[in-house]
Amino acid sequence: MAAVKLILEYDGTRYAGWQVQPNGPSIQAEVERALSTLHKGPRRVTASGRTDAGVHARGQVASFQEERPLPVKAYVLGMNALLPEDIAVREAALLPDGFDARRSARGKRYRYRIENRPGRAPLSRLQSWQVFRPLDADAMRAAAAQLLGRHDFGAFRASDCEAAHAVRELRRLDVLGERGGTIEVVAEATAFLKHMVRNLVGTLVECGLGRRDPAGMAALLASRDRTRAGATAPPQGLCLEEVFYEDPP
Amino acid sequence: MAAVKLILEYDGTRYAGWQVQPNGPSIQAEVERALSTLHKGPRRVTASGRTDAGVHARGQVASFQEERPLPVKAYVLGMNALLPEDIAVREAALLPDGFDARRSARGKRYRYRIENRPGRAPLSRLQSWQVFRPLDADAMRAAAAQLLGRHDFGAFRASDCEAAHAVRELRRLDVLGERGGTIEVVAEATAFLKHMVRNLVGTLVECGLGRRDPAGMAALLASRDRTRAGATAPPQGLCLEEVFYEDPP
Repeated sequence: MAAVKLILEYDGTRYAGWQVQPNGPSIQAEVERALSTLHKGPRRVTASGRTDAGVHARGQVASFQEERPLPVKAYVLGMNALLPEDIAVREAALLPDGFDARRSARGKRYRYRIENRPGRAPLSRLQSWQVFRPLDADAMRAAAAQLLGRHDFGAFRASDCEAAHAVRELRRLDVLGERGGTIEVVAEATAFLKHMVRNLVGTLVECGLGRRDPAGMAALLASRDRTRAGATAPPQGLCLEEVFYEDPP
Repeated sequence: MAAVKLILEYDGTRYAGWQVQPNGPSIQAEVERALSTLHKGPRRVTASGRTDAGVHARGQVASFQEERPLPVKAYVLGMNALLPEDIAVREAALLPDGFDARRSARGKRYRYRIENRPGRAPLSRLQSWQVFRPLDADAMRAAAAQLLGRHDFGAFRASDCEAAHAVRELRRLDVLGERGGTIEVVAEATAFLKHMVRNLVGTLVECGLGRRDPAGMAALLASRDRTRAGATAPPQGLCLEEVFYEDPP
């Protein structure tokens, strides 16, 4: 028995999200269909976490246990021949039995892209949030600096988030770029709550627009009140870039 | 009477090209429809040139003559409210009567994007050519250097190109990036022949793959024989970045 680890890139535009859904196509269903064809028998996979409808990934990780795994190359080439063009396997690896994409994950990095110009941006509309009014990136950075570290992020979790508690360690929250162009927010944490990155970005954008005082982040965290944080940023700007695991022993 | 100049960005993915076509939606038809609604009467526009099916633009220019033009702002905001989300007006300007987007053009810059990695790239597949085998960017640069300048580009024109002659001045042909990532070819000329950028890129890629000697460009130009150049690179990697005009007097 071994664990097979797959690193996936996908364009989430036409999917209802990672997880198998009754109401629309899912990335998980496509991956499981290809894998079941390859193995000539049903296979189910576990991902590092769900991604919402419209959210993309450059480094989502999925895994499954396999009695007689195929050669690594067969997973990459075989899956890519079977998957639709908006999903691809970037890498595959065989790991010891205990590896599980979700339970073994030690951290994640997301990137959120904002297109900040006065008019619509047709070429990046499916992979960015188009913010028309000028953003003060320095105000966003000032707010981001206060959110770094270990906090209760209850103010930034979705109302239906099922996590047992909201304490997370935000290791990185960088605001890259300047107004009038592309602004990217890079967020890295040991784990995230549901909608946490999109709620952080929505709040940073309010600071960048001058509608919210960047100095208010500590009080916002302390409140743990979701209704006091900014609106949830739209999904298409978000991309799961990388999932971190402990080095194999 | 004045000339109205519109600078357009569009995602060419779902269009049969710039020009009005019987066999599919065109960008021109969408622009003319929006303009006719705005002016409450039929309007036709001229572009700097056609773009092929699947080709994108960040700076296509279209123009039309108008007896009583609207304020510039009305063209930007009004058109963007009426156009589909994959087409936008970036800027508008009112110019003297004689301005014509095609006849007044003095040069163009295109950008061609190649995604050079061993597997498929779902997130950039609609805006790049996915070349799986490693490209030697230096070989591509060596070939490009020989193509610069004023030449008869007959070897690089489409067989149905209708231009009277094939002499063009290639002012810039830069190969940016390295193997294993994104490689971009930036081409600038006073004017281009039909499929010229895509034929240049197809030929450069053959040099990058080691299938063609970069030193052979001079002989290829001298032959003026289309059958001796490389295959036409696919359309979705190409983007019309900017059209140049003389400064207004």
